[in-house]
Parts: sequence; structure tokens; C-alpha cells
Amino acid sequence: MKKYCFGVDVGGTTVKLGLFTPEGEVVEKWEIPTRTENGGSAILPDVAASVTEKMKEREIAKETVIGVGVGVPGPVDDNGIVYKAVNLGWGVMNISGELEKRLGVTVRAGNDANVAALGEMWCGGGKGCKDVVLATLGTGVGGGIIVNGKVVTGSKGAGGEIGHMHIVDEEEEACGCGNHGCLEQYASATGIVRLAKRRLAASNDASVLRTSQEKNELSAKAVFDAVKDGDKVACEIAEEFGRYLGKGLAMIAAVVNPEVFVLGGGVSKAGEILCDYVSKYYDKYAFHGCKNAGFKLATLGNDAGIYGAAKLVLG
Amino acid sequence: MKKYCFGVDVGGTTVKLGLFTPEGEVVEKWEIPTRTENGGSAILPDVAASVTEKMKEREIAKETVIGVGVGVPGPVDDNGIVYKAVNLGWGVMNISGELEKRLGVTVRAGNDANVAALGEMWCGGGKGCKDVVLATLGTGVGGGIIVNGKVVTGSKGAGGEIGHMHIVDEEEEACGCGNHGCLEQYASATGIVRLAKRRLAASNDASVLRTSQEKNELSAKAVFDAVKDGDKVACEIAEEFGRYLGKGLAMIAAVVNPEVFVLGGGVSKAGEILCDYVSKYYDKYAFHGCKNAGFKLATLGNDAGIYGAAKLVLG
Repeated sequence: MKKYCFGVDVGGTTVKLGLFTPEGEVVEKWEIPTRTENGGSAILPDVAASVTEKMKEREIAKETVIGVGVGVPGPVDDNGIVYKAVNLGWGVMNISGELEKRLGVTVRAGNDANVAALGEMWCGGGKGCKDVVLATLGTGVGGGIIVNGKVVTGSKGAGGEIGHMHIVDEEEEACGCGNHGCLEQYASATGIVRLAKRRLAASNDASVLRTSQEKNELSAKAVFDAVKDGDKVACEIAEEFGRYLGKGLAMIAAVVNPEVFVLGGGVSKAGEILCDYVSKYYDKYAFHGCKNAGFKLATLGNDAGIYGAAKLVLG
Repeated sequence: MKKYCFGVDVGGTTVKLGLFTPEGEVVEKWEIPTRTENGGSAILPDVAASVTEKMKEREIAKETVIGVGVGVPGPVDDNGIVYKAVNLGWGVMNISGELEKRLGVTVRAGNDANVAALGEMWCGGGKGCKDVVLATLGTGVGGGIIVNGKVVTGSKGAGGEIGHMHIVDEEEEACGCGNHGCLEQYASATGIVRLAKRRLAASNDASVLRTSQEKNELSAKAVFDAVKDGDKVACEIAEEFGRYLGKGLAMIAAVVNPEVFVLGGGVSKAGEILCDYVSKYYDKYAFHGCKNAGFKLATLGNDAGIYGAAKLVLG
């Protein structure tokens, strides 16, 4: 009898859903809107209805569904309870309890960044490894820590909040979290733009990035495009980015000693050159017993969440 | 039928052994010398003989022994293989395989610092918690990371090597590991003495520590004794120590979000005042979702290893 599992990634605008085989093949993926009104009370009923409909449509019997995994933007404990998910309008929500009641199958839930790491371990950049750290370099820096094939949730769901590791003592601007000198302030897309602005302001050295800045087009992509064209100032900015992130990942390695670091998020579109800048400084700062770690780019893009959510129920 | 398990802590000079109940009561503990000659080839046979003898002496049937756990000073993988244990004269050694053959019971092995963390979680400062970080502040700084009740070994056994997190960029002296600016250089007993010497050399401020230094008695204990007597210079040194260690533990929290940090090793004899200095700076640098972590002193002392080793086989 063929078995299936569902992976659900609940975002602030859309809910992504995927139907998977236990071997990691995606049978079908689709989306529904996220209805955040009324404290997001319709979100889980909508998910349940969409899963039920898909089962009916494909004549999938309940007995063949191993379970439904769900990733949400907020800290989730091991019982599938989220304590706050601002983007969804949720306070405390028992995701597993609520969906199991409606679907009659096993439901597991996790934080979206952690779940994405699990997806990349299962079928993406970390495939074949069981000790994986995902660093998602987007507007902020998120992370997911996989130890022995399992997500590290942490005692209050704050495991993998690597964007808020303290990296720089002298920082005067505050991070979104209220602290100063968080990794996110240097290694996110916005962080790279900050580094670029500072570097451009520090001298009159020629750089194509000055034109980007005038056109209001200074971005992480612009920086790495300029690096590829050999722009000296852009290369210095990339070095600085690499030094902060490489140092942060070296510290993570002294804690969980992963086999591979997977770099994802918008910034990772810069390509392999990103791994070069980061691994150079990682090697400088890492403990010798951790230096063997690999650096890979994430490969699942926006689908990492549904892959990882499906993997949640496969154990 | 009463069940038992053995915990074995193999050190460079003595092997500590303990007979435990599954509930964490120590029935008896004893020691044998560690024979490191001939590549340490007698060590495991000696352990097997001592365990066998104890079973005979106490008329413990093999069927009632859940297993034997072993902690060794070196990186150990999940199959119970150590890759190098310099202090024991060992190269690659299959601890589990070797002892299971001789004893006919389940054997699990782990790195001694990791195993000590498990012991403190089971019956010591971290009792009742399942997400625990142990920082052992001795000659060096060791660590053990417990996630969901299990030791984080890491892909190459370097999980929990928190003494080698890079903390200070400007450090000119090298750490024993070859890097510069490792946590161990500031938060170990020797590290505190370094901080003290630097502080004393930096000014002529009066301090009882000057007398200690003249008598060649400058030590972590002397520093914290002076702190308790209100010595201003000693208090500044303690602040600096607290800042480095608090910052390091805050970074660990962003990775694994523990419920409690347990401080052990010789430095922890300073008492609760140690937790005060560390938690003050931890709170400054930690991500808000991690600030709730507790700080406790280790309570098992040199027995943490045998407790943790026994716990290894209880799962």
C-alpha cells in the first residue's frame, strides 16, 4: 500500500502545501491564501479543509497518510504548541491538537526556519547528512540546527536563533531584537547593504556600487554582482560579510559540530562565491576538530518549508 | 528483579567506577589505576575485570545489568569508537566493541566532558531539565551540550567544545589549540590568572592580589576570595571574566536555547557569586527568547563522569 505525508508551510500571506512520498518525492504542491483576520482563526480550518479535499481528489485513504507536518513563523514546543505567531495573528495555538481533531491523522508542528533546515537536510543542500546547520540569509538571518537528524527546538523554541548571536561589541545601531551587534546586522541582505553604505562613506574609492547607491539600488545582489566583476570595494565588503558570518558559524560549530553548513535565503542567490567568502573565515576561527565541515548552498528555495514539514512526521 | 548499571570514567591516572540503580542511586563507587603503558592496551581489559569482579562479589546476575557506560578523554562517535585519546595512549579504539565482547552486556561510550554534562542533568545541577549546557571551568574550559536529554556528540565528536569558541579578536597570545581569543583563554582557572596578571600590570591600584602574586599564589580561587572581601581590582577581574563567559554562553543559547547552564570545574568552587557575574552579562548579550535560562553550580564534582556514563546506557 502506497504511503503519503503532507507538508504545510504557513506564511503570513500564503500557505504552501505539498503531498509527498516517504522517499522525499513531491507528488503535488499548491497554495492557499492565509486568512489572518479574526486572530487567524480560519487558518488551521482552511489547512484541514485543503488537505481533506486533496485526499478526496486523489482517493487517498486516511490509513495511508503517515501524517501532516506544519511549519509556522513562531516558536513551537515539542507538543506542537506555538506561543505567539505575530504574522498570523496568533497567540497561543495548539496546532497539533487542532489539526489532529479535524483530520484524524498524526500532526507535528515546528518553527518555519527550523523546519526549512530539516527540509534541506532531507532533500536539499544537506542531503545525506544528519548534523546540519542551515543559515537563512534573507531580510534577517534565521537558522535551523539539526542534530542527529532531529531539529533542535530548544527549551522555549528559540533554538537556531543564530541571527541574534552577539558578534560585534562596538555596534551602535540597535538590531530589531533590541540588542546591539547581532549577526543579522551584518550577514542578512539588509546587513550587507549597511556594510556597503558604511564602506562607501568611509572613503572616495571608486566603485560601481556608488552608481547603485545613487539609483537607490544598493542591495546584497548588487554587492555580489560587483564582486564577480572584480570591484575592489565590493570585494572588501564581501570580505567583511564573510568574516562576520564565518566567525559566527565557527562558534556554532564549537557547540554542535555539524557535518555541513547550508546557506539559504535571498543572499544565497549570489552562488558558490558566497561559500568561498564564508568558509575562508570559518577556517580561520573554527576549532581544529570542526574544520572539516562543508559549505553548501540551499537547493530547495521556497519549498524547503514544505519538504521539512513533511519530514517532521517521518521522524 | 532489581536492575543495575555501571558508570566508568576513564582518566589519565585513575579509572573511576560506579554501580548505580536506574533511579540514579549510587550503590558503590571505587577506583582502579589507569595503566597507560603499551598504548593503553590494558585499560579496557582492566575495566572489564573490575566490573566482572564487582558483579561476582555482589552476586549480580548478567541479566540484571542494563549496561556499562564509559566516558573517555577524547572524541567518541555514536558507535562508541574513540579516534584519539592522547592521555590514555590510545589511537583508534572501539570501546563498545571491545568491552561488549568481554562483558556480554550493552556498552555505550562518550567523551568525558559530554558524559559529565549528562551526569549533571541526571542527578546534579541540571536535575529535572532536559536541555542543559555544562561549562566545566578547570585548567581549560570543557563543555557538554544536552538537547532533549541526549548528548550532542557532533559529526566528529567535537560537539560541546565550547572552550574553543572565538571570543576576542585582539588576542595576541595563542590558545593551546593554536587559535587566538578562545573562551578558554579567559574563563578557565588559568585564564582568570592571565586576566588578573594583566589587570595588575595595567596600574598600581592597591589589591590583596599583589601579595598573592608575590607569593606565587595568584589563582582563580585567590581572585574570587578577594572579590568576597570587596577587593576593587579583583571585582574588576571578575567582571571581565563574567563578560567573556556570559557572552559565550549567550551565543550558545542562540544555538540550542537551554533551560539551564550548569557551571562546574575547579573555578565553580567560588560558589554562587560566579553565577551572579556570569548571568549579569549573559542577560546583556542573550536574545530575548533565551533570557529565561537558569544558572546553577554543578553538584556532583568528580563523580559527574560516573553518573553520566551510567546514564548513557539508560537512554
